[in-house]
Amino acid sequence: MKNKTEVNGTNGNGIKLNGSNGSKPETEMSSQDYKLPNSKRVYVNGKMFQDVKVPFRQISTSPTRQHDGTLEENGTINVYDTSGEWGNDDSKTDATKGLPAIRLKWIKERNDCEEYDGRLIKPIDNGYTSEEDLAKAVNNTKSKLESYPGLRRKPLKASNGGAVTQIYYAKKGIITPEMEYIAIRENLGREAAINYALNDDLKRNGLDWQHKGESFGADLPNYITPEFVRDEVARGRAIIPANINHPESEPMIIGRNFLVKINANIGNSAISSSIDEEVEKLRWAIKWGTDTVMDLSTGKNIHETREWIIRNSPVPIGTVPIYQALEKVNGKAEDLTWELFRDTLIEQAEQGVDYFTIHAGVLLRYIPWTANRACGIVSRGGSIMAKWCLAHHTESFLYTNFREICEIMRAYDVSFSLGDGLRPGSIADANDRAQFAELDTLGELTNIAWENDCQVMIEGPGHVPMHMIKENMDRQLEVCKEAPFYTLGPLTTDIAPGYDHITSAIGAAMIGWYGTAMLCYVTPKEHLGLPNKKDVKDGVITYKLAAHAADLAKGHPGAQIRDNMLSKARFEFRWEDQFNLSLDPQTAREFHDETLPAEGAKLAHFCSMCGPNFCSMKITEDVRKYARELGVNEEEALKKGMEEKSRQFVESGAEVYMK
Amino acid sequence: MKNKTEVNGTNGNGIKLNGSNGSKPETEMSSQDYKLPNSKRVYVNGKMFQDVKVPFRQISTSPTRQHDGTLEENGTINVYDTSGEWGNDDSKTDATKGLPAIRLKWIKERNDCEEYDGRLIKPIDNGYTSEEDLAKAVNNTKSKLESYPGLRRKPLKASNGGAVTQIYYAKKGIITPEMEYIAIRENLGREAAINYALNDDLKRNGLDWQHKGESFGADLPNYITPEFVRDEVARGRAIIPANINHPESEPMIIGRNFLVKINANIGNSAISSSIDEEVEKLRWAIKWGTDTVMDLSTGKNIHETREWIIRNSPVPIGTVPIYQALEKVNGKAEDLTWELFRDTLIEQAEQGVDYFTIHAGVLLRYIPWTANRACGIVSRGGSIMAKWCLAHHTESFLYTNFREICEIMRAYDVSFSLGDGLRPGSIADANDRAQFAELDTLGELTNIAWENDCQVMIEGPGHVPMHMIKENMDRQLEVCKEAPFYTLGPLTTDIAPGYDHITSAIGAAMIGWYGTAMLCYVTPKEHLGLPNKKDVKDGVITYKLAAHAADLAKGHPGAQIRDNMLSKARFEFRWEDQFNLSLDPQTAREFHDETLPAEGAKLAHFCSMCGPNFCSMKITEDVRKYARELGVNEEEALKKGMEEKSRQFVESGAEVYMK
Repeated sequence: MKNKTEVNGTNGNGIKLNGSNGSKPETEMSSQDYKLPNSKRVYVNGKMFQDVKVPFRQISTSPTRQHDGTLEENGTINVYDTSGEWGNDDSKTDATKGLPAIRLKWIKERNDCEEYDGRLIKPIDNGYTSEEDLAKAVNNTKSKLESYPGLRRKPLKASNGGAVTQIYYAKKGIITPEMEYIAIRENLGREAAINYALNDDLKRNGLDWQHKGESFGADLPNYITPEFVRDEVARGRAIIPANINHPESEPMIIGRNFLVKINANIGNSAISSSIDEEVEKLRWAIKWGTDTVMDLSTGKNIHETREWIIRNSPVPIGTVPIYQALEKVNGKAEDLTWELFRDTLIEQAEQGVDYFTIHAGVLLRYIPWTANRACGIVSRGGSIMAKWCLAHHTESFLYTNFREICEIMRAYDVSFSLGDGLRPGSIADANDRAQFAELDTLGELTNIAWENDCQVMIEGPGHVPMHMIKENMDRQLEVCKEAPFYTLGPLTTDIAPGYDHITSAIGAAMIGWYGTAMLCYVTPKEHLGLPNKKDVKDGVITYKLAAHAADLAKGHPGAQIRDNMLSKARFEFRWEDQFNLSLDPQTAREFHDETLPAEGAKLAHFCSMCGPNFCSMKITEDVRKYARELGVNEEEALKKGMEEKSRQFVESGAEVYMK
Repeated sequence: MKNKTEVNGTNGNGIKLNGSNGSKPETEMSSQDYKLPNSKRVYVNGKMFQDVKVPFRQISTSPTRQHDGTLEENGTINVYDTSGEWGNDDSKTDATKGLPAIRLKWIKERNDCEEYDGRLIKPIDNGYTSEEDLAKAVNNTKSKLESYPGLRRKPLKASNGGAVTQIYYAKKGIITPEMEYIAIRENLGREAAINYALNDDLKRNGLDWQHKGESFGADLPNYITPEFVRDEVARGRAIIPANINHPESEPMIIGRNFLVKINANIGNSAISSSIDEEVEKLRWAIKWGTDTVMDLSTGKNIHETREWIIRNSPVPIGTVPIYQALEKVNGKAEDLTWELFRDTLIEQAEQGVDYFTIHAGVLLRYIPWTANRACGIVSRGGSIMAKWCLAHHTESFLYTNFREICEIMRAYDVSFSLGDGLRPGSIADANDRAQFAELDTLGELTNIAWENDCQVMIEGPGHVPMHMIKENMDRQLEVCKEAPFYTLGPLTTDIAPGYDHITSAIGAAMIGWYGTAMLCYVTPKEHLGLPNKKDVKDGVITYKLAAHAADLAKGHPGAQIRDNMLSKARFEFRWEDQFNLSLDPQTAREFHDETLPAEGAKLAHFCSMCGPNFCSMKITEDVRKYARELGVNEEEALKKGMEEKSRQFVESGAEVYMK
């Protein structure tokens, strides 16, 4: 094994950890594994901040051969790129050293935070209940976990109990480098839009983009300016998850006036999975375009796993801290305490987690309303808190200590993702009293978070039939005062386990259109087992297409450009371009080649579905050619024909058709 | 090879045809290949017509072990079953002999049609341009095709130019056996509903079903009665595709006040595929639940292929006759004639095709409006007709001879599926002038079809972003006076080739909710290649779940029962029941077993996703158990706790939370 290293003192575990368990070690992956065809990395530089360098994946296309033999260029398109340093053409990134800390200078230049020693890492943080337990584990290869000193950095924290949050700056009227970065990114690489947004004035709306969608009251500008980003964050309508201890992250925004984002969950579990798999899953998920990743690991070595993931992640990382807290009390929900939970929040905030799911809306009086549900409480966090509340006959420590949680969150800029612990787990339970009562409470908590200069988004369901989806969005906007909504699906039927990426993509696309800012993916394994690599990819691609469908329906400026380029390629039988412009070029190509594997087939002006005589696109070309041969354009050709026909029609007594 | 047989005189080909090309011959398939787990075939008998015997698949479940050790039965559920005789527990069906002609007695007893010799089958019907061409083919194993005399039957036709259509009977107030069959079938096997519908009076609406959905003006009754079926057919709001020459078909209905149906396309092509594959695909598609099948075969031997398919199909078969007509003129659209097309209609009507896609709405003046589209004309039929119209500078023979087409359709009861030849093939082209102009024409043609006592449905797009979908449905209902809508998807984005079953399932579920009666499936191979067996299954299951999501959203009576049973099984960790109640038990089980293969795991009260400590369902059980141990029910237990808490709250100065 390469990269075997002595453990850093900060870790405190004293273990020699070994990253391999038989699967391909992630450090051996080259950037080639993550390249997509006909693509190169390009950067657009900021105007306000010189070291803002926003990456795009530039896809190039081949020209169209026109009927007279001349070539018409089809140009390039810059697409949103979540792959970070891993997606660089010449990336030499080493997972054991982590990604470059691109935001560190910006964070430090704000002069409002300071380095400190941080909390001591304890054996329990990695799931070992004692030093003896840990010592035993060191001798057990299965529990070994290698640690890398290059990944360790002293934590930062707001000075003097202040706020270092993007909403705090936004409310003060400050445009941060993160905001300019996002403005460039959200313009989808449209050069004109970026130039307009950065060079002209900071008007909210531009001039020449025609909105075609129906945006349900969202306020989509033609060009995203840094000022627009600031304003949306200040209003609480968007968040920028950006812990000051995750300087490796590339700024992104979650809000309904921006591109719809998606989240992919990864995580081990008590029963299967390994750390290698989890880190590989992160890179795999961002290759296919996930905007954030939630690390839902449980069991052994989760502190260390999280460190690896965060240090190697260009996208924000979310967690559900109650999972780790529960590990620390051996799974006994009733033994959880505020002190232990608080300590876990600090542990994870120091590592750089960008958003925490906190199920603070599960109130004691709501719990009985779930007892007669078809599926009771299906949120893990929700059921843990419900059990705690019942055991102690009191409101949860999350709710009673919410203001203190806010103080922690704002000191690191961890965003709230207020969990829907009582979300419906079946069609039968959708939109019930328990669910909406909790949502009301989340609305109250949103206000408190904002008072404390914290960023906040709200989690949503779950299992909801189509006709009940919009009510979820409408209520959330009203009750939570337009704080971003972040939903799981929703799944629109219960009867298709094995296909729940699809049952949920239907609901996700719809709720994204209605205004949900981020869609949490569902994989084909939902309800059945742990997702493997293929499942993660299927989940991510499915949610990318659902989010894109929502962007189109909302009329997001520029979203349709990629559809138009792909459709033009499809119409012109530019097969390679059709593959390369798609969300998953590899699968598109493989599916094509299954029927017509020869390279020549990708140049042919027909395909396997219909054969040459039946190809409608070919026939349409013939239609155009026919008109051209008459020396007039199509419309004129037809008019000529129609005039002729009209004369006949009149002459024959206007009875040409329908005898 | 077994089943090699001399050719029947009716065929006229004089070929010894060989059914095998290396793949498993479909005649060797036993009914075991088509069995789903824990399922048995049950029949519900008609009350009005003694030989009405409606098949259901009855899924049985295991009991729930309650906390006191007693068992609570979960019963059985009857689900809609499209597998026909192939799905019988003891099916001995032989593909070379075809299915039993269950409707033949009903058809003959109506005394309005007569047997006749029928059209002579010509070499050109199978794609051979001359007797020499055919003779050559006989010596070429690749083109050989075995024919079976057992499949031949003399065609039936309405006597004296009359109508033998279901709409004709319905308008006269006659309830046919087909209508009673459908009434039983549409009640989804709910015993109470069936008894009510059949034994009580024929009221349109029943008593005790609570509609939860939003039906967009659809008129869903609580119970489907035979009279309701008749009335809907008479109004033209539903069709029963049931050619009198396809007596093997099990009656089904397409209309927005009934269950949403799906169609699967199968078919060979000039370049690949084989007849064995096609017949196997039919059985495969109906196993997974497709309600109709369109045979889109082109190339050689299509007449014979069609015969095999129809004789073995319990579901209605649709075709696009212009495809075969084009074969007969060697692919030259401009050489098509009305006489040739008319002859092809009769050829296929005599075989028993249940509905014809006819692109009669492609008018000459609409064609120029497609010239500047991103993707021109993408419908094969539409582009063939457009080419013909341009070549002849006249309206198409489909349009000018529409009344004569009606006369043919009504003589066999072939339903119209009025094709949308100008449907949009890209997001950029959605809802444009050409598309909606054609729809207006289809509305006019609908009226003419109804005047001629023909059944008619209308085909719809295509590629449409979400916010433009509802306009399609609203316009169709208005313009076509509520004739059933039958849509392809629509696909909600262009950028995901390889995943277009999903991009289209989003649109399909939505438009199904809005009122579309049948959804034409899209497979993952759409735009890329020919679907294989896995693709067909993926397409069918995806569309079954989309149709079911639409049924739930519309509030179709009884649709949610299966979701509720599955969710209860899921909540109670009855893994086997969860698999068996799902649309695809095999995949659900395989996905589960990938993580936890041991048989014992299917009895465990946790699963691989979370492990025992984190299982929210287990915790919810604990919540209920906790309340029980207090000797009170959950609500009382909580109230007790709340009272205590309230006292504390008041005593502490009402400042318990949010210090």
